[in-house]
Amino acid sequence: MTEHTYKHIELTGSSAESSDQAIKNAIAKASETLNNIHWFQVIDTRGYIENGGVKYWQMTIKVGFRLEE
Amino acid sequence: MTEHTYKHIELTGSSAESSDQAIKNAIAKASETLNNIHWFQVIDTRGYIENGGVKYWQMTIKVGFRLEE
Amino acid sequence: MTEHTYKHIELTGSSAESSDQAIKNAIAKASETLNNIHWFQVIDTRGYIENGGVKYWQMTIKVGFRLEE
Amino acid sequence: MTEHTYKHIELTGSSAESSDQAIKNAIAKASETLNNIHWFQVIDTRGYIENGGVKYWQMTIKVGFRLEE
Amino acid sequence: MTEHTYKHIELTGSSAESSDQAIKNAIAKASETLNNIHWFQVIDTRGYIENGGVKYWQMTIKVGFRLEE
Amino acid sequence: MTEHTYKHIELTGSSAESSDQAIKNAIAKASETLNNIHWFQVIDTRGYIENGGVKYWQMTIKVGFRLEE
Amino acid sequence: MTEHTYKHIELTGSSAESSDQAIKNAIAKASETLNNIHWFQVIDTRGYIENGGVKYWQMTIKVGFRLEE
Amino acid sequence: MTEHTYKHIELTGSSAESSDQAIKNAIAKASETLNNIHWFQVIDTRGYIENGGVKYWQMTIKVGFRLEE
Amino acid sequence: MTEHTYKHIELTGSSAESSDQAIKNAIAKASETLNNIHWFQVIDTRGYIENGGVKYWQMTIKVGFRLEE
Amino acid sequence: MTEHTYKHIELTGSSAESSDQAIKNAIAKASETLNNIHWFQVIDTRGYIENGGVKYWQMTIKVGFRLEE
Amino acid sequence: MTEHTYKHIELTGSSAESSDQAIKNAIAKASETLNNIHWFQVIDTRGYIENGGVKYWQMTIKVGFRLEE
Amino acid sequence: MTEHTYKHIELTGSSAESSDQAIKNAIAKASETLNNIHWFQVIDTRGYIENGGVKYWQMTIKVGFRLEE
Repeated sequence: MTEHTYKHIELTGSSAESSDQAIKNAIAKASETLNNIHWFQVIDTRGYIENGGVKYWQMTIKVGFRLEE
Repeated sequence: MTEHTYKHIELTGSSAESSDQAIKNAIAKASETLNNIHWFQVIDTRGYIENGGVKYWQMTIKVGFRLEE
Repeated sequence: MTEHTYKHIELTGSSAESSDQAIKNAIAKASETLNNIHWFQVIDTRGYIENGGVKYWQMTIKVGFRLEE
Repeated sequence: MTEHTYKHIELTGSSAESSDQAIKNAIAKASETLNNIHWFQVIDTRGYIENGGVKYWQMTIKVGFRLEE
Repeated sequence: MTEHTYKHIELTGSSAESSDQAIKNAIAKASETLNNIHWFQVIDTRGYIENGGVKYWQMTIKVGFRLEE
Repeated sequence: MTEHTYKHIELTGSSAESSDQAIKNAIAKASETLNNIHWFQVIDTRGYIENGGVKYWQMTIKVGFRLEE
Repeated sequence: MTEHTYKHIELTGSSAESSDQAIKNAIAKASETLNNIHWFQVIDTRGYIENGGVKYWQMTIKVGFRLEE
Repeated sequence: MTEHTYKHIELTGSSAESSDQAIKNAIAKASETLNNIHWFQVIDTRGYIENGGVKYWQMTIKVGFRLEE
Repeated sequence: MTEHTYKHIELTGSSAESSDQAIKNAIAKASETLNNIHWFQVIDTRGYIENGGVKYWQMTIKVGFRLEE
Repeated sequence: MTEHTYKHIELTGSSAESSDQAIKNAIAKASETLNNIHWFQVIDTRGYIENGGVKYWQMTIKVGFRLEE
Repeated sequence: MTEHTYKHIELTGSSAESSDQAIKNAIAKASETLNNIHWFQVIDTRGYIENGGVKYWQMTIKVGFRLEE
Repeated sequence: MTEHTYKHIELTGSSAESSDQAIKNAIAKASETLNNIHWFQVIDTRGYIENGGVKYWQMTIKVGFRLEE
């Protein structure tokens, strides 16, 4: 049966390296406790600045996962 | 005491039949594990297309429920 | 002369049956006192939940009507 | 190879019957000339009113299809 | 290590007293079960009216907390 | 019969005292001529400044009331 | 006493001549029945096209007026 | 049969003269290749500045036209 | 001559006391260096949380002031 | 070297004559103190009404200029 | 003559490598059939997740190109 | 004393290399004249296209810095 229900949660991942890596970090963290994660959408792109450079990229994403039947 | 706190979660329900039914499916699924669900709000109306027809209606909703005191 | 002026009002219709019917109910109610209603636009789709089902569909619409000259 | 590119177009379908049917009509019309249509998203829900009832439902959707490789 | 992940949840707090107090009530309630709450953002300001006065202020907020490492 | 229709109007209330009081003033004024007012939602928070202080808080709200059957 | 309450209504004015004139037409029409109109804000700029030209400019505006004390 | 389908495209017209003229230019250009154009909606109003004056008005519009049956 | 030009700047004020006070603090700070400040509009309402309470209210506002002629 | 940085400021220009002229007035005023202004975008279109007519058009724009290297 | 007209289309590019590469892929694909492409704007940043990692970055962009005169 | 006031400015940085680098360039430029820069938020992601490739990434950001006490 394919009439699935999906839940979305909102996370902020951070990385000193890049905006893409901050997204990957949040997804890796969510995958520790959630199965069936299927997609993400970026909600907000922010960062923390120190000494004229980006110290942390902070990416807020929605993550969607299928609820167990 | 009536100074309640409510929590909102975001779900996507799907249905081969209609947009209204996709909403009902998501609410029925959420009701399996949550009490005190009071309202929903539609956030996004999408669907999956196959052979020139709507194969699945996909309704993303916010659902609000009262936290236990 | 065709340089008409239109006014828009915002209504919420409710129905136990379907989202489309909640829209029709609001329009029928508005038509009791307003002439020249021409169009509607859906602003918000919500509903009231009881026992894991949709008890009322609540559709908020803008309704446009031509002012008398 | 799965690094596809998709194009989105915006359509308004109309129906005297229901909001869901107006969406189906727009998709059926688009399918006459486009292959590989995969999804739709509702952008706007409007309608034309006559004699206190909904004469036409007008659903504006985005339709996404995969470009040929 | 400072590449933290944060989760956001959405709550509605209510208060008979003031809009600020409704926010405080929601945060106090969330703090009963969540550690590491760091910030909130107001999403919606609403209220329930009775006899020409505000009977309840209803403040919908996003609350962000750091996930345990 | 509970398939009510509600109308929303948009008001700006002002107060020299506080943002909450500006909302209360608008609701009190609307209650002079309307029955069945049930809820409000804040649309815009502005104010007029004089001598480095807030001279008037100006709160724009939507007010919803049930139409007579 | 200066703690006034203002009401906003939404109108669409039309003109064969220009976008500015369509706004002026809506304001002139509203002034036939309302006193104390103070400001407008443009909400939507649309038009009707015939033979490759703009036949009517259709400007949707919010108009604010002070309620009588 | 009146259950038409409409397609919308997005254009930016430019003019050295005025904002209205930039809209007219985009519509005239679109009419060279499209029949059945019925309406436009302004999406963005921008311009290019040179020597403290507006050198080009740049109006981005959506244009709607009826698909052939 | 009354064809004034106004400039808007965006500020975040903070206060341990209340949301209204955070707005007042930002305006007082801006008034140290700017004359002719006329209005503000709230853009974002946030706060910093410690021990289940609001430690700082953080109000982001736009402030408008008249440029000298 | 062409990796320029641009700054945007927000202005409201006013004119008794037309919406386009209010934009031109704001740009002319900004050009008195800023070099390298390249573009504008309209953010808000408002006006002040007196005696059923538009007394002032008030156009809020963002203006972009290149920072000196 | 410089009163050009531009058309915008909406595309989703995908890449297993990075968000920037997904944008480049969509532009390269569009350039196979369109001349005079001048700019893009990101509309949505999404991705497909498998085994706790980003399997595809999916970037939705608007692409603008000058219509032939 | 910790009731700080922050100011936000809007910048567009450009880079031939990547979207992240365009952000870094804007922050580096702002840091030449501003102290106490703490955060940024991405407002718009655009780029200039030449020969089917991205010639410049153009990232518009808000930058927040603490005002001197």
